[in-house]
Formats: sequence, C-alpha cells, structure tokens
Amino acid sequence: MSTRIETDAFGEIAVSTDKYWGAQSQRSLGNFDIGDIRMPEPIVKSFGILKKAAATVNEELGVLDPKLAKAIREAASEVADGKLTAHFPLVVYQTGSGTQSNMNANEVISNRAIELLGGVMGSKKPVHPNDHVNMSQSSNDTFPTVMHIAAVIEVSNQLLPKLRDLKTAFEKKADEFKDIIKIGRTHLQDATPLTLGQEFSGYVQQIAFGIERIEQTLPRLSYLAQGGTAVGTGLNTKKGFDVKVAAEVSKLTGLEFKTAPNKFEALAAHDAFVETSGALNTVAVSLFKIANDVRYLGSGPRCGYGELSLPENEPGSSIMPGKVNPTQCEAMTMVCAQVMGNHTTITFSGASGQFELNVFKPVMAYNLLTSIRLLGDAAKSFRINCVEGIVANKEKIAKVLNESLMLVTALNPKIGYDNASKVAKNAHKKGITLKESCLELNMLTSEEFDQWVRPENMIGPKD
Amino acid sequence: MSTRIETDAFGEIAVSTDKYWGAQSQRSLGNFDIGDIRMPEPIVKSFGILKKAAATVNEELGVLDPKLAKAIREAASEVADGKLTAHFPLVVYQTGSGTQSNMNANEVISNRAIELLGGVMGSKKPVHPNDHVNMSQSSNDTFPTVMHIAAVIEVSNQLLPKLRDLKTAFEKKADEFKDIIKIGRTHLQDATPLTLGQEFSGYVQQIAFGIERIEQTLPRLSYLAQGGTAVGTGLNTKKGFDVKVAAEVSKLTGLEFKTAPNKFEALAAHDAFVETSGALNTVAVSLFKIANDVRYLGSGPRCGYGELSLPENEPGSSIMPGKVNPTQCEAMTMVCAQVMGNHTTITFSGASGQFELNVFKPVMAYNLLTSIRLLGDAAKSFRINCVEGIVANKEKIAKVLNESLMLVTALNPKIGYDNASKVAKNAHKKGITLKESCLELNMLTSEEFDQWVRPENMIGPKD
Amino acid sequence: MSTRIETDAFGEIAVSTDKYWGAQSQRSLGNFDIGDIRMPEPIVKSFGILKKAAATVNEELGVLDPKLAKAIREAASEVADGKLTAHFPLVVYQTGSGTQSNMNANEVISNRAIELLGGVMGSKKPVHPNDHVNMSQSSNDTFPTVMHIAAVIEVSNQLLPKLRDLKTAFEKKADEFKDIIKIGRTHLQDATPLTLGQEFSGYVQQIAFGIERIEQTLPRLSYLAQGGTAVGTGLNTKKGFDVKVAAEVSKLTGLEFKTAPNKFEALAAHDAFVETSGALNTVAVSLFKIANDVRYLGSGPRCGYGELSLPENEPGSSIMPGKVNPTQCEAMTMVCAQVMGNHTTITFSGASGQFELNVFKPVMAYNLLTSIRLLGDAAKSFRINCVEGIVANKEKIAKVLNESLMLVTALNPKIGYDNASKVAKNAHKKGITLKESCLELNMLTSEEFDQWVRPENMIGPKD
Amino acid sequence: MSTRIETDAFGEIAVSTDKYWGAQSQRSLGNFDIGDIRMPEPIVKSFGILKKAAATVNEELGVLDPKLAKAIREAASEVADGKLTAHFPLVVYQTGSGTQSNMNANEVISNRAIELLGGVMGSKKPVHPNDHVNMSQSSNDTFPTVMHIAAVIEVSNQLLPKLRDLKTAFEKKADEFKDIIKIGRTHLQDATPLTLGQEFSGYVQQIAFGIERIEQTLPRLSYLAQGGTAVGTGLNTKKGFDVKVAAEVSKLTGLEFKTAPNKFEALAAHDAFVETSGALNTVAVSLFKIANDVRYLGSGPRCGYGELSLPENEPGSSIMPGKVNPTQCEAMTMVCAQVMGNHTTITFSGASGQFELNVFKPVMAYNLLTSIRLLGDAAKSFRINCVEGIVANKEKIAKVLNESLMLVTALNPKIGYDNASKVAKNAHKKGITLKESCLELNMLTSEEFDQWVRPENMIGPKD
Repeated sequence: MSTRIETDAFGEIAVSTDKYWGAQSQRSLGNFDIGDIRMPEPIVKSFGILKKAAATVNEELGVLDPKLAKAIREAASEVADGKLTAHFPLVVYQTGSGTQSNMNANEVISNRAIELLGGVMGSKKPVHPNDHVNMSQSSNDTFPTVMHIAAVIEVSNQLLPKLRDLKTAFEKKADEFKDIIKIGRTHLQDATPLTLGQEFSGYVQQIAFGIERIEQTLPRLSYLAQGGTAVGTGLNTKKGFDVKVAAEVSKLTGLEFKTAPNKFEALAAHDAFVETSGALNTVAVSLFKIANDVRYLGSGPRCGYGELSLPENEPGSSIMPGKVNPTQCEAMTMVCAQVMGNHTTITFSGASGQFELNVFKPVMAYNLLTSIRLLGDAAKSFRINCVEGIVANKEKIAKVLNESLMLVTALNPKIGYDNASKVAKNAHKKGITLKESCLELNMLTSEEFDQWVRPENMIGPKD
Repeated sequence: MSTRIETDAFGEIAVSTDKYWGAQSQRSLGNFDIGDIRMPEPIVKSFGILKKAAATVNEELGVLDPKLAKAIREAASEVADGKLTAHFPLVVYQTGSGTQSNMNANEVISNRAIELLGGVMGSKKPVHPNDHVNMSQSSNDTFPTVMHIAAVIEVSNQLLPKLRDLKTAFEKKADEFKDIIKIGRTHLQDATPLTLGQEFSGYVQQIAFGIERIEQTLPRLSYLAQGGTAVGTGLNTKKGFDVKVAAEVSKLTGLEFKTAPNKFEALAAHDAFVETSGALNTVAVSLFKIANDVRYLGSGPRCGYGELSLPENEPGSSIMPGKVNPTQCEAMTMVCAQVMGNHTTITFSGASGQFELNVFKPVMAYNLLTSIRLLGDAAKSFRINCVEGIVANKEKIAKVLNESLMLVTALNPKIGYDNASKVAKNAHKKGITLKESCLELNMLTSEEFDQWVRPENMIGPKD
Repeated sequence: MSTRIETDAFGEIAVSTDKYWGAQSQRSLGNFDIGDIRMPEPIVKSFGILKKAAATVNEELGVLDPKLAKAIREAASEVADGKLTAHFPLVVYQTGSGTQSNMNANEVISNRAIELLGGVMGSKKPVHPNDHVNMSQSSNDTFPTVMHIAAVIEVSNQLLPKLRDLKTAFEKKADEFKDIIKIGRTHLQDATPLTLGQEFSGYVQQIAFGIERIEQTLPRLSYLAQGGTAVGTGLNTKKGFDVKVAAEVSKLTGLEFKTAPNKFEALAAHDAFVETSGALNTVAVSLFKIANDVRYLGSGPRCGYGELSLPENEPGSSIMPGKVNPTQCEAMTMVCAQVMGNHTTITFSGASGQFELNVFKPVMAYNLLTSIRLLGDAAKSFRINCVEGIVANKEKIAKVLNESLMLVTALNPKIGYDNASKVAKNAHKKGITLKESCLELNMLTSEEFDQWVRPENMIGPKD
Repeated sequence: MSTRIETDAFGEIAVSTDKYWGAQSQRSLGNFDIGDIRMPEPIVKSFGILKKAAATVNEELGVLDPKLAKAIREAASEVADGKLTAHFPLVVYQTGSGTQSNMNANEVISNRAIELLGGVMGSKKPVHPNDHVNMSQSSNDTFPTVMHIAAVIEVSNQLLPKLRDLKTAFEKKADEFKDIIKIGRTHLQDATPLTLGQEFSGYVQQIAFGIERIEQTLPRLSYLAQGGTAVGTGLNTKKGFDVKVAAEVSKLTGLEFKTAPNKFEALAAHDAFVETSGALNTVAVSLFKIANDVRYLGSGPRCGYGELSLPENEPGSSIMPGKVNPTQCEAMTMVCAQVMGNHTTITFSGASGQFELNVFKPVMAYNLLTSIRLLGDAAKSFRINCVEGIVANKEKIAKVLNESLMLVTALNPKIGYDNASKVAKNAHKKGITLKESCLELNMLTSEEFDQWVRPENMIGPKD
C-alpha cells in the first residue's frame, strides 16, 4: 500500500495515499478498535454542511482568505453530498466529544481543498485543518452542531413524511371500513361492538399525535451550539459568528436553524436529544400497539381472530408449506423494541455529562439517528407491504359478532345492570344465544329484544 | 369486627361496618394480595371530581334524578377533598383497567350518599353504585379520565411551580456568580475559563427547557376519555355527555380539560402518559447532570474540586466525625434514577395495550404520579436545602484558575495551534507556568504574554 | 405534642416523646420531605439483626461491656421482630449511603436499650448510639450489609418458595393436559399441532430456569460488607470482626452469609444487586410471556381463542354485565412491567457509584426489595386465583385443530415441500379441507391422507 | 447486471448471477428495506456450522444421501469460515423468526453445493434448499440454535478472554500501587485513607465477579433448540436428531453444547438471552464505574484530582493545544451505555413472544452479539491504551492526603466521636491542620497526636 506521511501534535504517521484523512483520523483507527459501527452518514454529511457554512461566515467576517474559503467550500460540498463518505472510517465508540470525527472532517476537507488548489496533501498548506477548516470552531461545538443538523434533516425529510404517509394509509382504511360492525374486545374478552373503521381511527389518532409529538421537539432540536467553541464562551470567535452560521446552515439546508440561546447548555447537555428520543419512544409505543393489533386481528387463517387478511409477501415457513406470516408487523415491532432500547442508551448518556461537556456525543448521535432511520424505514415498509393491502374478512367479522354475548350491554338501560348480567351469564353457561337467554329468564319479549339489541345502534352515543 | 353484607354479581360478602366500600372492593382485597402500594391519592381524589361532574351532567341531561345527583355530588366532594381516602384500600396491581378502583369509588360514593339520604348502606338504594354513580360511564373511560385529571393537577399545581422556583434559585446564583472567573473543564480536563455565573446559566437553561418540555405535553394530557364508555363508541351515553363532562371537570379544577378527539385512542392507548413520562425523563436527565456537577464542584473539603461550599444540613458520617455530605444532591440523583426506571415501566406498559383497551392503566398511573411527585418534592428540597445556600469559594477558584495551562488557547490566533500546543506540553512536562514556557521557547515576550493571556478576555467572543 | 430534646453534632432538636428515634432521624424528616415511600420494612428488620449480631461480636472481642451488649441485643431483637417499625419514619430519598437510616437504627436501639436499663432517653447514657450501637461500624458498611441480609431473606423465604409453588401448579396442569392435542401457533398463525401439556411444559421450564437464575445469584448476594467501615479498610474494627459478624448473622437468620472477599468492592459497588435484579428481570420476562399466553388462550368467551377457561373471581365490567376478565394475568403483567422498570433504576444507580462509595444505596434497596416482594406476591396470587383453576375447553380445542391447514406439514416427507405448499394454498383459497384439496390436486389417495395426516403422530419425532 | 431465475412458492424472481442466494433472500431484500444493519457475521458463520452438523447427522440417520451430505458440508464449511459472508445481505429487521436468514443459508449452501457437484444454480438439483439443506429443520429451531451457537462462541472465545486480560492488568496495577497511601473519598468528600492498591483491588473484584456472572449463564446459553422444528415437538425429525446435532456442533466448535431439555421453551422464549444480557448489563455497570473513577482520578492536569496520569494516545482538542483527554474511558462508558440500552431492547423483545414462537429473534441476536462484541473490544482497547499505562502521581497523592481532615477518624476510639467531630470542624472553619486543632482544643498532646494519627495504621483492622 502506498502511503504518505501525515503529522499532528503527536508526530508523524503513515496514511494510505488514496485516502484524504490525516494523522488524527489514522491514529484513532488504531486507538479505537471497538466494534465496526461507523459514524452515521448523516453526521458526515452535516460536517460538510457546517464546514461550508463556517468558511462562508469566516470569509464574511474577514478572518479567512477568500481563496481558501472557496476551496474549503468546494471540498466541504463534496462531503455534504456524500461523495467522500468512504474517507470517514472512524467508529462511534471513540472520544466522547467526537473530536476525532471533527478532525476527520477537518483533515479530509483540508487535504481535498489542498488538492483542488494544487498543493501537496499532508502539507497542511495552503489549507490547514485546524487553522482554516476548523477556524472559529472547536470539536466541542461542531459535534453537537452536526448532531442537531443531522437529526433535524432526517426527522424533517425522512421520518415525518413517512409517518404522514402511514397516517394517510390508515385513514383510507378507516374510511373503507367505516360500515363494518365488529365485536369490540377489552381485556381480550368480547365486549360491545364498534366499526372496524372506528378501530382503525384510533390508530390514525395515535399516529397523528405521534407526528405532533415529534414536531414539537423541533424548536429545541434546531438550536445549534456553533459559536460556543471549547466551553461555551465563544472564545476565539467573533461576535455574531454563531448567529451567522445558523443562518447559513438554514440557507444550505432549507430548514430553519437558530443559534442556541445558551451555549453552555448546548455543549454540556444534550437534553434535546433525550427529548426527541422520548418522542420517538412514544411513537414506537404507538406503532408497537398498532402492529400488534394488526397481527392478532390477522391471526389464523383458521384458528385465530381472522378478521383481517394481510398481504402475502413471501413464503412463510421453511417447514410448514403454505404458511403466510405477518412479517411486516414483526419487523415493525422489532424496530420499536430497538427504539426503546436506544432511548435507554440516550437517556443514560444524556444524564452523564460533566461540567462543561457531555462526552457521550457519538453514542447519542448514533442511537438517535438509528432510531429515526429505522422508524421511518419501517413506517414506509409497513405501509407499502402491509397496511395498504389489508382486507377485511367481512364474513368472519359478522359471524363472530353475532355469536357474542356482550350485546347484552344494550339492555342495561332497559332491565338494569344486574339483570343484564344474569342474562349473559345464563347464556354463557348454557351455550345459548342472548335472545334465548332473555326469553328463558322472562326478561323481555322477543320483539323487545329485536328492537333493543341492534349492533348498529350500539356504536355511538344516543341523541 | 362488626360487618354488614354487601352484594355484587358474584353474591354476598361481608364488609366492615366502618368502611364505605362494597362487595367488589372487598373481593379485590382478597384476590389481589400483591404488595402494599395503594392506588395513589391523586387518583382517588380525581374520582371524586369526576363522579361529581358526571352527576351534574347526568342531571342536566335529564337522566339522573336531581335528588340523587345532589347526594352523589356531596359524597363525591368528600372524596375529592381527600376526606374518604381511607376507604380506598385497593392496591395498584389489580385489574388492568382499574375497574375495581372505579367500583371502589362507585361503592364508597353510593354508600355515603345513601347515608346522607338516610338509607341503609349496602342496600344500593336509593343510590346504586352502577346505575347511578357510574351512570353513562364505564371503568374503561373513567379510569383513563382520572389518570389524566390527576396528572394534569399534579403537574400544574405541584411540579411546575416547584421547577419554576428551582429555576429562579439558579438564576439568582448565576447572577450572584457572574463575575467569578473559573477554570472550565471538558473531558474532566482543565479547559479555557468561564464565569461561574455562565456555568450556572447552563443549569438555568436546562431547567427552563425542561419546564417547556413538560408544558408542551399538557394539551394531550388534558384530553379526557370520558364519554367513550366500554370500547370508545360512547354506548349508553347521550350525545354531548363527553363535552359537558370535560367542561364540568375544568370548572371544578380550574384547569383546562377537553374531551378527547378520538375515544378509541383514549381507551386503547395511553401514549399521552408515555409522552409526559418522556418529558419527566428528560427533566430527570437534566437534574441528574446538575446535581452531579454541584456535588463534584463541592467535593472536598480539602481533597476535591472545592469550588463550591454546600449547606451543611446534618452530620455526615456515623464514623468520620465532622464530615458533611452533599446529601441533597444524592437524594435528587436517586429520584432521577427512579424517574428513569418508572419511564421504562410506563413505556413497556404503554406498548402492551390490546385491541380496544390498554390494561396497564393502574401501573402507568402509579408510576407517572410517583415520578411527578418525587421530581416536584426533590426540586423543592434541593432548592431550599442546597441551591439557595451555595457559596462560591472564591479563593480556591482563583488559585486553581491561575495554575491552569489551558489559558494557552488564547494564543492560538497569535502563534498558531501547533506552537501553542508546544508551549502547553513543555509547561506540563516541566511543571512550570505557561508564561515561563512561552519565554523559554521564545514564542513571545513577557509583555505580549501579559497582554494576550487574560482570563477576563477569554469568556466571550471578540468584537 | 410532648417532646424531649435530642442532640447531635448539629445541636439540639425536639423529638416527640412517644418515639424512640433521636436527633439525626428527626433532622432527616425535615431535610428530606420527598415523597412518602418509607424505607422498606425488610431493611428495618435487618438492621435489628445486624445490630444484635454486632453487639454480640463486639462483646466477644472484648470491646463492648456485656451489660450494654445485652441491652442492645434486646432492643435490636424488637427491631428485628418488626415491633418497632413505626419508629423508622425516614423515606427512601435521603442520603445516598443510607446514613440516616443507620442512625435511625442506632438511635432507636440506644434509646430503647436506655429505657430497658432505666436510663433517660436522649441522654445517650449508658448506651450511646454511635459509640455503642454503631461500635466497629459505619453507615457505609452497615447499609450495604442490611441490603444484602434483607434481599437474601426475602428471596429465600418468600420469592423462591412462591415461584416453586407456581412451577408445581403448572407441572400439574401440564400433566393434566398431556393428552389434549391442539393447534400450534407460530407468528400467531396456525402451525403444526402439539399437546396442551407440551405447551404448558414450556412454562414449567421457563419457571424452573428462572428459579435457577435467582439461586445462582445468592452466592454473591450473601456476601456482607460488614467490617469495611468507612472506606473498606476496616479501620476501627478488630481483625476477625467481619468474619464473626457474618457467622452471627447466619446463626440469627438460619441462612448462609459470608464476609465479602473484598470490602472496597462491597461499599463502592452494588453489582450484586444489579445482578439479582437482572435475574428478576429475566423471571419477569418469563412470567409476562406466560401470563400473556394464558390470557390470549382464554380470550373469548365466544370471539377469541377460547381454548382455556380461567377462573372467575369477580365481576368484570361496570358497564358490560356478565363479563369476566383475566385479571390475574393483568396484575401479573403489570408487576412484570414494574420489575423491568425497577431494573432500569437499579442499573443506572449501580453504575453511578464514585470512588469508595456508591451513594444510591436506598433507591437500590427499595427497588430490589419491591421487585422481590411483587414477584413473589404475584406468583402466589396468580397461582391460587388463576393457574390452579384453569380448565381446558376440549371441544373448542378439538374443533379448531380439525379446521387447521397446517397438518399439511405431515406430508412434507411424502410429497415434498413445494407440493404440500400447493395443497395448503389451494385449500385456503377455496375454503376447503386439506383432504379435499389433496384429492382435488391428485396428490394422494384418501387412504394415504388418512394414514399420513394424523395429529397424534405429529407431536414428536419419529422413531 | 447478469441474472438467473430463482423460484420459490411465490414464483420466479431474478437474482444476480454472482450471488449464491435464491428467491426468498432476493424477495426479502425488496420487502424489508429497513435500515442497513445486516445480520451479524457470527450468526452467518453459525449457520454454516449448524448446516454442516445437520448434514452429518441426517446422513448418519440414513435420511440424506451421502453424496449430497458431503457437498452440503463442503459448502457449509465455507459459510462457517466466513468465505461467503458477502452472500448474506439481509438486514436484522425482517421476519421475526429469522426465517429469511435461514432460507438465505439454505439457498447459498444449496447453490454452492450444486456448483460443487456441477449442477445448475437455481435448479435446486441435486441439492434442494428446503428438502436437503434444511432437512429435519425449521427456521423456528435453526435460528434460535445459531443464536446460541454464535453467542457461546463469542462469549467464550472473545469476551471472556478479554475480560480476563483486563482483570490481570488491574491486578498488576493493584500490586504495583499496594504501598501508596491516599485519601479515601465517600460522598465525594474526603474520608479515611486507603492504599491506591486497595482501591484498584475493588476494580479487580468487580471484574472477577463479572466474569463469574457471565460464565454462570453459559449452561443455559449452551442449550440448543435444534430438533424442535416448527413448534417444539420435533415433527419431521428422527428420534435422537436433537442430541446428535448438539454433539456434532460441540465437535465442530470445541465448545460444549447440549440439546435443550424442553424445545417448547427453546422456541417460544429466549430467556437465556435475556439472562446473558443481564450479566453483560452488570458487567457494563462495573466497567462504567471503574472507567468513571479512572477518569476522575486522572482529572487535571492541574485543576482536578490528578492522582493518576493516563496514557496520552492522541491530541486532545482541536482548539485547546496540548490537552490530553481520557478518551479510552469515554469510549468505554459509551459502550456501557450502549449495552444497557441493548439490554432494554432484549428485555422487551424477550417478554413479547407469543404461544409457540418468539418472533423477536433477529433483534435479540443482533443486540446481544453487539453487546458481546463491544464489551470485549472495549475491554481490550481500555486495557492496552489506558490501564496498562496508568501511572500514580505519588507526590500529588501524598500532598492531598496530608491536607485532609478525615484522619481525625483515628481519634474516635481515643476521644470519642463527638470530640473528634469538634476537632475536625474547628480545623475546617479556621483552615488549620488537624493537629493544630487538637492542640488548640486541648484534646490531646502533640505526642499523642503523632502516635495515634498515622495513615499507615488506618488502612486495616486492628489486631
């Protein structure tokens, strides 16, 4: 392997010539041989966005040579576009401030900019990774900044649209099923009826609230730490740098970012990540419940609830021929369990900051971005491969409804709770219908029964 | 023990004559001998509020006799005021819908109302627990309703005021400490300086955001399930019952409640509890970090950081005389750990609902109300017994700052990062001051050093 | 209220004359007004055991006057027997070392001993709470010691016997149901058959393993920190004190305790609690799955799986007459969710120790003891009120089995997986039986079908 | 891209000719576009081991043609050796039984075996993925089997050796530091002294117990589900298949495996994974505490505790020159937080199995294997890059010890707790030494002080 020499405060180190990274990235590869999970790509791309924005603002503030600024912007754009992701080899479990990933960005961008300007890679001339690419910055403010940029982009452009599409798919089903009356189930026991559309409307509401919950975290997630530098004071920046960077990032992303109102909080705590993770955790709870209902309602085909038919997407069993399983529900519930676990990691990490810095940044970034990605992907997969293809088994639904004893509830206002209770228990014990039981117990006439016990009158309040 | 006979659908059962509860409560005591944690009092009181509101609305809608309504209201008021809490003996780990606690409320209120009307307790006449006290209601909608009423009351009247007071206490300290320059610490290592006031301003911001986070959950927490009855359809209610009950509860509590926009969601899911718990979890994360910082900054008296003196509230050690410990920080961090665990319970419970009903209601109610109570109490105790009495040890702070090497950061713009790095490393190795190191390495003159390395110029951006 | 004056290093404070506690307990009541959860009684009783043992060993080692030792033992016995629990008013969220509860024990025992010896309460003569009752001890070693004593006692005498009884109950059912062939369900979809006894044997195995898991933690849970005093060195004890105390505690409890092999670990970490909580968490996972299966198999009565009838213990619904719910399963699953959350609290607390001391002792003790108590009580309640009364609905089970398509699996070795798959899909599509489908597709003769597709031949491997 | 046609029960689908996988794998790629986390390689390799073992046993039992068995073994060996990992493209979030990964293995091995035998890939001849490679098996028993094989291999060959090495490294340090007396710290406050070696011995004990904890889970982790087939009954296997497979896997891996005593439990529950995860969670708790202590003791260099010097492995700050950070501690604590979160995912997943099958297998496998990998790698990295290079700052340690007030504890037996308390408080208030305070208060003579207050006499019990 052909190598060049790169240097840092620790001295020289060889780096493969086909890589843009420098000494500190290379050193990190040796020092942190821990797992194989790399820093997520949204973080890498956000470093591209940030470094580009910083170069523009530094130029504007008169502290960075326009020629260098231009080259940095060009190189940073390539990072932002994902063209140089292969040059970001560092793993998540590294320095807790993400310093090495920040240096990875500085090194890649400086070497690429040097290349663009015809210089010698590794020379740090004319573009120095620290003095120029990292100008007015510290790992301590850049890393939380890219955490927030990445999270806002992924939430806004991926997760929320996919959840909205899922909501729409359920809305359509709720409408499609609005006239199908079915047995309700509480405590898993037969209860009073409702329409299948009403049941699905509950899922719509859960997802709608979930979208609200996530959206509500955006104001705090959109605050950028940039400008705080090492400890939050903004040492080595010019006044206004923070505000201008946030504005520039907004321009580059088309999303609204603001400078954090308090930089000490923004470096030392990542409560906004814990908060957003809490919203994702709530959405996971909702989707878990929904997917679980769907698979139970689709259980069977002959020995389960069998009220729904779910799409068949693949052979189901390597030993039981012809079996079709609710695999999309399974993938979704596994994703939800993952999101809940990630939330624990984020919670514990968020609580463990010390003084001016939280040093669990990479693990928090990785877990939140993973949760965002998985929930979005699963929402889409679940929608396309399951929800949109759900079919109501009307015959099974009707058959089951008519066998139920809980229609007796309609008689509460007529014969009182205690008598209605006797009717139901008698029918249950003898295996007869409600009507038969009513007549046997002389509770009411056949006509009265037919008039009062009508499922279609039991699915809403009275006028 | 003197007893009377009470009855339910299962038959007769003896109840102590000095208790208002009836057959179903008594039966529950026998069937659920699980732990000794009773249903929290805010739930009991909220049942009083709800049953009172329901009686009023039922009367207004013309389905409940005014005389009975009046008696129910009177009895329910006593429950709401906490006068009958001793008559609510049921534990948390019972039926998952809270049915038995709802029946406990129905029974206590009906028997007390009977008593007020001169009837015979246990006779269910003239006030029947189901037909009158529970009129237009089901456990399935009353229990989630009281969960929400109780949580909103406790959050609004207890937790939020106590958090606001804590924020104010930290604001005062931030202001008091605004001119005390101290060493910053990142990665626990000496870093560039900031003021103690700036450090505390980060805590203020965390708490301010925390208050916002909790407040933002109130819209969904204020939705009441009442009117959904058994499965969400509102069977056995009159149209408008739901809206009127919410209005009546608002009137009784002075807090804003609305009827839930979708009752199926409101019975089958308690995502709003998961969401609020998520907000409390975030606040716990913030307070954990703050309390941890405070105890480390107060560590010593002679062998720790020693920058703060915390109030001495009690003898510290049963073996080490004269020791004073950061006990309020310890209580606070234990509370935070409890809240995080409660959040796991709430998350798991919230995800495990089935079809038309979530049957983890009591455990969710208990855990959320406990978290609210503990966080509020701990915020108050921490404020009074610790925060308000924090004293800055100015001499220690100044001494430590002056020994630091990280003031070298001020030289970055003057001599470049690499040279500044050499100065710091040389000083560290030889145990000399930064200035001595600068001069030894001929980096700059004594005058330049004095002019450039000034802590007071390092605590903010440049003009 | 009549009071006496008690004193500590902070000065005088008034205590109600009808209470045995002293100045430090009283002070704690004022300083920690946080929630209302008191230190669990098993901790209080274990303090009685420990203080009695310590008095005996101190006397034996010649450092404690026999007369005082005797009085201490007598007073401590009353604490151990639960007679003085009302004199332990302190809450869980106090000093993280449990210092105040240790002092509470010292104060109550000294005052009671003084009383027994005819002295003046509060005089600390002739029995001083620190110098005599706490002799050779520190809160830092007594509190972890009582944590371990209490946990071992509760696990050994309560939880394990109750789990063993539950296992026995399931074993009996597995035996009772050993000849009932039923449809299997994987992915909630109909699968190949098994016996109901086999299904229940899985539950037996889960509980059996769970008992093993808990038992395996006992060796480390039985190590006592006593003898480490303040930081683990054993300062102010005589050599052998630690070993003798462990022996004495073993004698008093009839359970095996040993002195911890490393006292530094025993004070600074409570990994043994995290470990035991992990075992309880696993048991909660098992019981959650079992209780969930039971309630689904018991779902209905007419619109669910309906394979099991669960005992009816109480009326089920305040609005739906005659409804009977799987309430014991609900209580059990709520307990399991609580145990999982407690585990999070214990995990986080266990990780947050610092240097020579973990200061999350009370919250760890409370959560573990609560988990032990709840799991034990729930196991007993579930057994008595549910498991022992489970009845198999043989007709429903047989009916469902015969409708199933998955018996086709028996044909894999005969006609191959792909053909068997076609048979099943054809039957499903046309709503016909497997046999009809086989014949229609000319896969085999009627005789072959009857010979090969026999549920009773599908419930085990072939010879 | 050149493709060939593969088929399954759903019909035809095109697969790239350079891939060995077949129709079901290809279909899964389309149906589960969820994240980018692939099934972990240890699972893939374990499928190679298992399929090889199954072929051998099937041949031995006379149900598989020896020629086919040989080809399957050869192909499976390549999978076991990791040579075909690129042909396992499926993600974790798929069917909850891992069916598609089992089919992926069946397809790759059958196609590779066909290739070895000169057949046409995709023809399923002469080696059929279901009928031959999957002979006597079901996804429902193979997937849990490979979960256990993979976990036992990774625990035994990776994690445990790395933890043992870490323990050894700490033991050496404990020995190296055995004569360095230092201040103890409880509640973060100065306490009585101990040696640095004693402090480190606590870490040794924690790790030693941790190793025990993990080892103790191996008996249950080593049970294999193989032989249970679809629902646990062993349908379509020959008697003895289960025992023989376990023996064959033991032979192939050199590790001890046994057939699970109850296959119903082995398919429907993965409590053994929850249990092992619980042990890893406990180890994470231990390592979190240790790494946290190490970084605090190494805090400084001038403004922290400064008792330890940690190795400098890389430049610490992109803005603060010369800063060196405890990055290995940070990586370790991030790993620990990840393991705790993974434990939540595993717990929740483990509890959510239904009837005869737990369908959270892939997510449980992924999370447990990730925890094992990360803990092992982090233990090694922490040892090499941190622990082995820790140096005690003897001067700082001595200086700090001598300033402490807590040596006063040595006077308890001489002047009583109350007097000792006065001495310490007086010294603290006036900023004088303990000795000066003693003399000022006439507590004892200078000679007595020197005789009694000796740190070296305070680090153990008295004779």
